[in-house]
Amino acid sequence: MTENTLAIYALGGMNEIGKNMYVIECEEDIFIIDCGAKFANNNLLGVDLIVPDITYLQQQHARIRALIVTHGHEDHIGGIPYVLQRLNVPIYASRFTLGLIELKLKEHKLLRDTQLIEIDENASLQFSSATISFFNINHSIPDCLGIVFQTAQGNIVHTGDFKFDFTPVNDKASDIHKMAAIGERGVLALISESTNAERPGMTPSEQLVGENLKDAFTKATNKIFVTTFASNVNRIQQIVEATIDTNRRLVLLGRSMVNVVSVAIERGYLRIPHRLLVDVREAQHLAPEQIVVLCTGSQGEPLAALARLANGRQRDLQVHQNDTVIFATSPIPGNEKNVSKIIDDLFYLGANVIYGSASTTGMHVSGHGYQEDLKLMLTLMKPKYLIPIHGEYRMLYKHRQLAQSVGVEAENIFILKNGEVVDFIQSTAQQTRLVHAGETYVDGVGTGEVENIVLRDRQQLAEDGMLVIVLTLDQENGQPLAAPDTISRGFVYAKNAEGLLLEINDLVLASIQPFKDINIRGMQHAIKKSVGQYLFTVTRKKPMILPIIIAV
Amino acid sequence: MTENTLAIYALGGMNEIGKNMYVIECEEDIFIIDCGAKFANNNLLGVDLIVPDITYLQQQHARIRALIVTHGHEDHIGGIPYVLQRLNVPIYASRFTLGLIELKLKEHKLLRDTQLIEIDENASLQFSSATISFFNINHSIPDCLGIVFQTAQGNIVHTGDFKFDFTPVNDKASDIHKMAAIGERGVLALISESTNAERPGMTPSEQLVGENLKDAFTKATNKIFVTTFASNVNRIQQIVEATIDTNRRLVLLGRSMVNVVSVAIERGYLRIPHRLLVDVREAQHLAPEQIVVLCTGSQGEPLAALARLANGRQRDLQVHQNDTVIFATSPIPGNEKNVSKIIDDLFYLGANVIYGSASTTGMHVSGHGYQEDLKLMLTLMKPKYLIPIHGEYRMLYKHRQLAQSVGVEAENIFILKNGEVVDFIQSTAQQTRLVHAGETYVDGVGTGEVENIVLRDRQQLAEDGMLVIVLTLDQENGQPLAAPDTISRGFVYAKNAEGLLLEINDLVLASIQPFKDINIRGMQHAIKKSVGQYLFTVTRKKPMILPIIIAV
Repeated sequence: MTENTLAIYALGGMNEIGKNMYVIECEEDIFIIDCGAKFANNNLLGVDLIVPDITYLQQQHARIRALIVTHGHEDHIGGIPYVLQRLNVPIYASRFTLGLIELKLKEHKLLRDTQLIEIDENASLQFSSATISFFNINHSIPDCLGIVFQTAQGNIVHTGDFKFDFTPVNDKASDIHKMAAIGERGVLALISESTNAERPGMTPSEQLVGENLKDAFTKATNKIFVTTFASNVNRIQQIVEATIDTNRRLVLLGRSMVNVVSVAIERGYLRIPHRLLVDVREAQHLAPEQIVVLCTGSQGEPLAALARLANGRQRDLQVHQNDTVIFATSPIPGNEKNVSKIIDDLFYLGANVIYGSASTTGMHVSGHGYQEDLKLMLTLMKPKYLIPIHGEYRMLYKHRQLAQSVGVEAENIFILKNGEVVDFIQSTAQQTRLVHAGETYVDGVGTGEVENIVLRDRQQLAEDGMLVIVLTLDQENGQPLAAPDTISRGFVYAKNAEGLLLEINDLVLASIQPFKDINIRGMQHAIKKSVGQYLFTVTRKKPMILPIIIAV
Repeated sequence: MTENTLAIYALGGMNEIGKNMYVIECEEDIFIIDCGAKFANNNLLGVDLIVPDITYLQQQHARIRALIVTHGHEDHIGGIPYVLQRLNVPIYASRFTLGLIELKLKEHKLLRDTQLIEIDENASLQFSSATISFFNINHSIPDCLGIVFQTAQGNIVHTGDFKFDFTPVNDKASDIHKMAAIGERGVLALISESTNAERPGMTPSEQLVGENLKDAFTKATNKIFVTTFASNVNRIQQIVEATIDTNRRLVLLGRSMVNVVSVAIERGYLRIPHRLLVDVREAQHLAPEQIVVLCTGSQGEPLAALARLANGRQRDLQVHQNDTVIFATSPIPGNEKNVSKIIDDLFYLGANVIYGSASTTGMHVSGHGYQEDLKLMLTLMKPKYLIPIHGEYRMLYKHRQLAQSVGVEAENIFILKNGEVVDFIQSTAQQTRLVHAGETYVDGVGTGEVENIVLRDRQQLAEDGMLVIVLTLDQENGQPLAAPDTISRGFVYAKNAEGLLLEINDLVLASIQPFKDINIRGMQHAIKKSVGQYLFTVTRKKPMILPIIIAV
């Protein structure tokens, strides 16, 4: 670090959707932007969440001044409880974002010890190395902020997740004039999201969804079920309006729906007339045509409210013939199969299900800007350098092409991996060094990290199961005191494999034959080798083999 | 069974895409249509394939006359090797379909003992209870047949998988006049596929893909890589034509591509000029603009040729900057993530990748008829009864709506589950009884079936790992001879959990304290209970606990 340090890197969010964490080092200060989590895929058995590895930040902890959070989605706030336990840092966020962070900190009993500072688009934060200001942008959650770092070498702009919505619902519109002024003053580097860089055109306005919801509500003759993300408060506002317009009452179903809606009402982001809301039991006394149920589970989560409705486990409220079920979201890649399963179950109950791609149903619009949104941002900001973030490689790649098309020089665009650093010296950028970056696996409660060796074991156990072979030897002469005992789990069903188990016993005894003295390690190795080879030949499986040898 | 028995049911293919198997019982005869497999999902750990449970057919084996195969896709032939080992039955199929079945039987060393009978659209098979004839239909593989069973109670028509393509490539067009004549003679029941019943409109012609391929080949300046299903021989023919037109040579990459192409050439379904094909090594001596590589792996299969190219493991041939890679397929639901990973890797190598939805790229058309195709089939056949098959529930449901729209009576449409039987008595159908249906899991080589208990164990091992606790007791007084020994795998990393393991030792000793005599089962139960409760409280995990108690 020199007096003129200015460096940008990501500890999460590059070549992935999820666990966003971007860092700006400016002279002696370090600013962190967002702290997200992502869900583990099926290859990480038993892992619940993945958060950024912050080893490097822990080494630099004395320099860290702030965690600034752009908005309240899980991939931007989900890592906070785990990171805070290692790195107590003041958190700056807008009013609604702070509400969601507080929910999370309460759950992890971290609220009392955390410094939370509310900001809005007019805030200006003074640090010795930089002045930080903000601008409004639109997304699929209220109260999102873009960030401007005014530094000695120039201005750095971070967009957060964004789209341009000229007719937003409730939300303030993206502040185009302010952005234009920022661009006029000069932007050294733009750090801009890339999620929809593959999609041509411009994202439709959220208002479109409201019109289509109203049509569907008007046509429905029985109960209506709508599912969307709990955090999409502006869409929920439109569901509320459609409910009022069709003289229905609203039931909220699902823990996160109830939690987020109450935060949104408290903080003034959602207006629901008091007597509109009824609970599940009151709803039983209403006629079907008076009921709208707003529920979680739009991504097919097997334990969420919609899944419980679809398979009849929700006792107080059922989906019946001719009820209408509306998916006011699109499945996130990877969730298609779970969503389809629920749609099948709903059809089976006789419901009229409105589902499918957003462009067909009109019941969803993306919160991430398409190609023209990204080009508008680039045009407003006129950056010298671009660092595309928040996307898998092909999205970052397409974002680079878009930037070139509006005049950013190819050599001034840096597609980075997590941990790759762009350093600025006299307002000129170069990428030569790395900081440590990686994934931390969170498993069960607390911050239990899971090591790779444990995951490898789980993988083997999951594919091929295991065998425990117990052998008791006479300490005096090294001879077996009884036949070996083999216990198998997840490999073959013991009752159907008696021949196999007898064969293993013979192999175990043969393996220890050559040993003159009791050599537990050597014997274990010999047993693993001979039994492993035999089983692979016969079954093409490689179960984990655990020989336990006891000398008495 | 009475003299007038006529019954239809599925043992696979209802409420699922995969493992198709439909059965027609006619007086004393049983005819099986198709014998497919499906891939296991991630919940079935270590299971390779799922095939229909044929317990019921094994009980009825003396009545089985034929397995008739409509076409050569895996979900229609993949179960044959496993079923043949339990049920030796003559197989009837068209020339190309038989070629693919033979490949499969060779691999399983079953070719010699199987009776294979080649049929075409003009064949007529005489059985005592029925006459069986055929008609051509189009799909995404050559030589597909629909089937007509002429029985005492009326005609039963099975469509196979189909679309209407009025300008097919190579293939004969769907035989509309023959179908019209079948409809005119009267169809008691139509058994018709439902895969694309959700999609409005009519499937585009395969020729469309040829035009777009030719455009892309003409624009490409360096090497071209194309990936598609090996069985889509007519698309491969178009890739061959585009290769010839652009003065390139063709390299085949991937075992199934080489196998299927050679069957297709041998049997006259594919015309490739002899000197067009070059092997990988010869290709090294050609200029980049002379090379087209046709490879497997379009669904992102991690071990297929395209994945090897994308991650640089294919030594003889590499993807370089400005090469073109064309996905001439769409990802099948569930494969999106694997496909995206490969696209990212290809962009990383600097390739120009043509990918995305079929309607955007024009590089793929579906082989399954859309709504208008299904309505055309219904209109041609004018069936009294419809049994929609080959689809998840929502597809069967939409197919029912389509059938009603062209005049089939609602009560004459049967949406069945696997095993539910439609019985005909005096040409009137009713659905009241069940035969046994289910899934057989195939694991590793051979036909190793996997029991549910083994899968449940694997699931637990995969999520939470396991602990083996070894305790040696003195046979005389029941006292431990040494401290218990705990081995953990896939649960926590032992080096980081010494405290936990010591605590377990204490719990184990405390659990056996109350026992006056050595009671192995009782002690094991007590240890499992106390250690299990403790671990769940501390870690929220439920590892499998295997106490091993040895009395010496």
